[in-house]
Amino acid sequence: MEEKYKDILDRIDSPADLRQLPVEQLPDVCQALRQFIIEQVSVHPGHFASSLGAIEIIVALHYVYDTPDDRLVWDVGHQAYAHKILTGRRDKFHTLRQLGGLSGFPTPKESEYDTFSTGHASNSISAALGMAVANKLEGNKRKVVAVIGDASISGGMAFEGLNNASSHPNDLLIVLNDNQMAIDQNVGALYHYLTRITTSQRYNLLRYKAYNALKRHGLISDSLRRALIRFTNSIKSFFSRRQNIFEGLDIRYFGPVDGHNVVSLVKTLRKIKDLEGPKMLHVCTIKGKGFQRAEEEATIWHAPGKFDPVTGERVKESTEGQPAKFQDVFGKTLVELAEKNTRIVGVTPAMPTGCSMTYLMERFPDRTFDVGIAEEHAVTFSGGLAKEGMLPFCNIYSTFMQRAIDQVVNDVSLQHLHVVFCLDRAGIVGADGPTHHGVLDIPYFRAIPGMTVCSPLDEHWLRKLMATAVEVADGPFMIRYPRGRGSIGGSDADGNPNWKNALEPVEIGRGYCLREGNGDTAVLTLGPIGMEAAKAIDLAKAGLKTDDGQTLGKQGVAHYDMVFCKPLDTALLEHIFKKYTRVVTVEDGALAGGFGSAILEEANRQGYTGQIRCLGIPDEFITQGSVSELYRMCGIDARSIARAIVKE
Amino acid sequence: MEEKYKDILDRIDSPADLRQLPVEQLPDVCQALRQFIIEQVSVHPGHFASSLGAIEIIVALHYVYDTPDDRLVWDVGHQAYAHKILTGRRDKFHTLRQLGGLSGFPTPKESEYDTFSTGHASNSISAALGMAVANKLEGNKRKVVAVIGDASISGGMAFEGLNNASSHPNDLLIVLNDNQMAIDQNVGALYHYLTRITTSQRYNLLRYKAYNALKRHGLISDSLRRALIRFTNSIKSFFSRRQNIFEGLDIRYFGPVDGHNVVSLVKTLRKIKDLEGPKMLHVCTIKGKGFQRAEEEATIWHAPGKFDPVTGERVKESTEGQPAKFQDVFGKTLVELAEKNTRIVGVTPAMPTGCSMTYLMERFPDRTFDVGIAEEHAVTFSGGLAKEGMLPFCNIYSTFMQRAIDQVVNDVSLQHLHVVFCLDRAGIVGADGPTHHGVLDIPYFRAIPGMTVCSPLDEHWLRKLMATAVEVADGPFMIRYPRGRGSIGGSDADGNPNWKNALEPVEIGRGYCLREGNGDTAVLTLGPIGMEAAKAIDLAKAGLKTDDGQTLGKQGVAHYDMVFCKPLDTALLEHIFKKYTRVVTVEDGALAGGFGSAILEEANRQGYTGQIRCLGIPDEFITQGSVSELYRMCGIDARSIARAIVKE
Repeated sequence: MEEKYKDILDRIDSPADLRQLPVEQLPDVCQALRQFIIEQVSVHPGHFASSLGAIEIIVALHYVYDTPDDRLVWDVGHQAYAHKILTGRRDKFHTLRQLGGLSGFPTPKESEYDTFSTGHASNSISAALGMAVANKLEGNKRKVVAVIGDASISGGMAFEGLNNASSHPNDLLIVLNDNQMAIDQNVGALYHYLTRITTSQRYNLLRYKAYNALKRHGLISDSLRRALIRFTNSIKSFFSRRQNIFEGLDIRYFGPVDGHNVVSLVKTLRKIKDLEGPKMLHVCTIKGKGFQRAEEEATIWHAPGKFDPVTGERVKESTEGQPAKFQDVFGKTLVELAEKNTRIVGVTPAMPTGCSMTYLMERFPDRTFDVGIAEEHAVTFSGGLAKEGMLPFCNIYSTFMQRAIDQVVNDVSLQHLHVVFCLDRAGIVGADGPTHHGVLDIPYFRAIPGMTVCSPLDEHWLRKLMATAVEVADGPFMIRYPRGRGSIGGSDADGNPNWKNALEPVEIGRGYCLREGNGDTAVLTLGPIGMEAAKAIDLAKAGLKTDDGQTLGKQGVAHYDMVFCKPLDTALLEHIFKKYTRVVTVEDGALAGGFGSAILEEANRQGYTGQIRCLGIPDEFITQGSVSELYRMCGIDARSIARAIVKE
Repeated sequence: MEEKYKDILDRIDSPADLRQLPVEQLPDVCQALRQFIIEQVSVHPGHFASSLGAIEIIVALHYVYDTPDDRLVWDVGHQAYAHKILTGRRDKFHTLRQLGGLSGFPTPKESEYDTFSTGHASNSISAALGMAVANKLEGNKRKVVAVIGDASISGGMAFEGLNNASSHPNDLLIVLNDNQMAIDQNVGALYHYLTRITTSQRYNLLRYKAYNALKRHGLISDSLRRALIRFTNSIKSFFSRRQNIFEGLDIRYFGPVDGHNVVSLVKTLRKIKDLEGPKMLHVCTIKGKGFQRAEEEATIWHAPGKFDPVTGERVKESTEGQPAKFQDVFGKTLVELAEKNTRIVGVTPAMPTGCSMTYLMERFPDRTFDVGIAEEHAVTFSGGLAKEGMLPFCNIYSTFMQRAIDQVVNDVSLQHLHVVFCLDRAGIVGADGPTHHGVLDIPYFRAIPGMTVCSPLDEHWLRKLMATAVEVADGPFMIRYPRGRGSIGGSDADGNPNWKNALEPVEIGRGYCLREGNGDTAVLTLGPIGMEAAKAIDLAKAGLKTDDGQTLGKQGVAHYDMVFCKPLDTALLEHIFKKYTRVVTVEDGALAGGFGSAILEEANRQGYTGQIRCLGIPDEFITQGSVSELYRMCGIDARSIARAIVKE
């Protein structure tokens, strides 16, 4: 990092320091932030391209607004690194996304500058509107600004927020960070012209005063005022040759403006800052701005991992011999299934890369539907496809599936439609932290009548369950599997990966004995956490050192992979309850109402009087960290499971 | 009903019959349907005003489209009575909303003409789009039409559907049934002009052909095509003096047209039926059309109960001496609390009347927020209000709360914001049936860390819990209570209702003994179902006749009202588990993961070895019927509970 830029950053420990600088120095601040982010993220991996794109917006907002008294609300928020750096967290930045370190997202737990929880898209307008309305009610003068990206604004709840923005008195500013829309050079001058006239405070003040004067004299009604606004908007829309949906919702619209000219951003924000009523500033930015490779390939550089900050070479960590990622096994298996069955289609809300539906997209572009950030639509759209005979695989990360529970209930399950829900990132996800752990899906799905809920032990089982979903199921079918890699590495002599077993279905609701037991204890697992349990049984067999130096062990522990949480294999459970006086259940999901709870319900039905110990995610929000660290914290790593096994 | 109209209806047993009639006869068909609905609904209560408003749309659609091969998808669907009558269900219409009778909503279980589940708003566009895309993929020529009201279209998922409507090849028609917008007389002529030019098939065909020709010759790119569409739209928008958000989303827009001129509706539909691509027809209707009182007061006549079909006098059933409705106790108590505490505000998504937040609205209009059909926004908006120091009571029917689970998790609970969620219509709701029973809220809420989940036994307890939510709680707090009346009737000498006890808080997480026991059995209940359990204990005491003529009884049964499902009163449970060898849990909610399941989890933790019998909603979708009929079916009426108590 250049010394000059280092000096600048060293003098900014808070936005108050930033506001001491003359406006001419802001481009240097932005450059300093850019270099800092490039250097830091190159060794401490995080979200990169969008962070570079938002730097000028962030600097301009903190410069013009009196943060933290004025409120900034981020949407998703992984673009807000510059915000973290400017608000006293520069020195901790190297702890990003680690256990005990800075969160990858703004979070109120970390700083008073982070006003609201972020991580799930499209909530910022509603949250900021609530804050703005509250301030108006309380007579506070503080400003509230929501910053939302063009992808997030396509989510339904963002529209609900926009649709309500003019319903109650407030002075909210929504900054739309648009990095999709290239400004068309031909009409650029017109855009600038429009921006200048509409942001002119004098023009708006005039309009506002005129309106108030007319109203005082009883010469204007509220509906006439709205009609006037619509008329003005309509003219602007005509000139700009685009429909402006925001003004259709009675939100004053300004822009688009260049999101990388920080001086002009400051000017624009100063002009609109004190305007009354809800308003939107449309800002155009470039993802990866200032780092050529990221500008060219924004998707790859969304979260690139480690890289060389000078050359832009990405550090390729060898994955030689490592097992495949579950998502890739899913993606490739889906193609195999779709080749044999023309009814199969893929649906995903904005995560084709993350869930590897890209393979299907390449092979069958017409049968793959990326619907954008729109989980509710994704599920009901799948229901509609199924109704007409298609067989949709609808892949949504477990945590985002919380957005579409009602649609799973009413638009699929109630009608017993044949939709396969694939919940990637189920269980503990690691560095993304509490907003992203997918730990509630089991309680949420198993309460739904007619739903099948299952989870594969490994890649082979993922394929079996996908085949089962196609060939055996006739209603809603949910498969949950975690982030990261499976457990089957390597390939055969012909180079075929070992995970590629035959695509054969299994019986729905049947569990399997992985290890016969001859003691008092059986371990029951669901999903890949079964691999931890298997290690735990080995540990228990070998003997565990206790705190007081004793060695405790347990021989002959049985291991059952239940595979299906719903329907449960009640016959197998009958056998287990007869044979064993102690049962340990293990799941990578919430204990309250989860897999263990389902086992307890069945044990109670069968009148089991033995001891049942349920291991899983405790009743608290789990922090960020590596998966293994968090497993340990939750007591579902091999060692903790082993302790539960040996302890009477 | 006039004989002439009766004759007409008698000749229409299916839409095929309808299509045999000359178009000139359709106004008579509409009139016949109108009279039939007025007569039927006056004695068999149902949704009235919106049903009258949609008659011409329904007749025109079935006349022009080849149903059931062409697909009609309704939104919410309680306006679709004429659709039911035309599709072979006229003779069963008197069974509306009764056990075993016609559903109040279109449902695929009832008829092939009902293509998709309805009941929860805003899903029709997504479902119909899925169906339209599937048909295109399969090469089917069938048409798909979604009919959505102007209230439903404000829901976020409708926007997600609209936003995706032009992403994939399809010929969907969206009919927007707009009964809010009065056509402004001044610009009416212009509207008609626009309608005529834009629906002209020739004009559209020309545009389409021109585009294809240009494309074939490589003279037009996709982005230029879009620009052209935008340009045309912009001009239309200019003339119509309104922003058209639909064309901003690349959906061709036609209208607005008169929704009560069936002949012209038929003409318009014929013109746009075969146009390719997604399109919207904006139809203006009047709620209650043809029944004067309903036209004048659409809200009262939404679901008016019984009335005189000639005079329009509503039959007032005496409620003298009956207990108050829970919703009214909620609504009036909220005003009392808000008078003492200025932080309190009310938020509801489009159900201020249904949940009686109208009382707060009258008293404190600035502190009451009806956000329209927008559950997700309602919850996060409440989070934003709470963040800035307000104390929102966010009232959403239990079944609709399923729409906003993720927001409860991330935008409120994760931040430990102080929001009070009041879930009206929790448990079995009766005549509205499977889409409306609120039976999943306990599993969904109790899995959320930091959440308090409780339910009042009666009106006094509702008030105590609301006071507790204000004075004791400091984080998310959920109170569930059912549709209908409480159990405390009457009033004191001064005319104050008996339900109006002092507003005193209780200890969070504390259960109470309602009846001391001296036998082996304790009954644990949550919420008003505790009143059924109390009766059951009396029945058990008196003795129950079994099927084989024996009398079985049980004395000294204890009854505990746990009040809180989360946190559970573990100390009280310890006492209960020590004292009783049999425990019966009763809840008006899903058994899978519900209250009984929470008791099982705690019993397991405490190592309880007695017998636990869980009563609640079984793992199936529950049909419609009276609440008492459905309680009996689910085994949670007094008699069924008594049987569980006496049976070893």
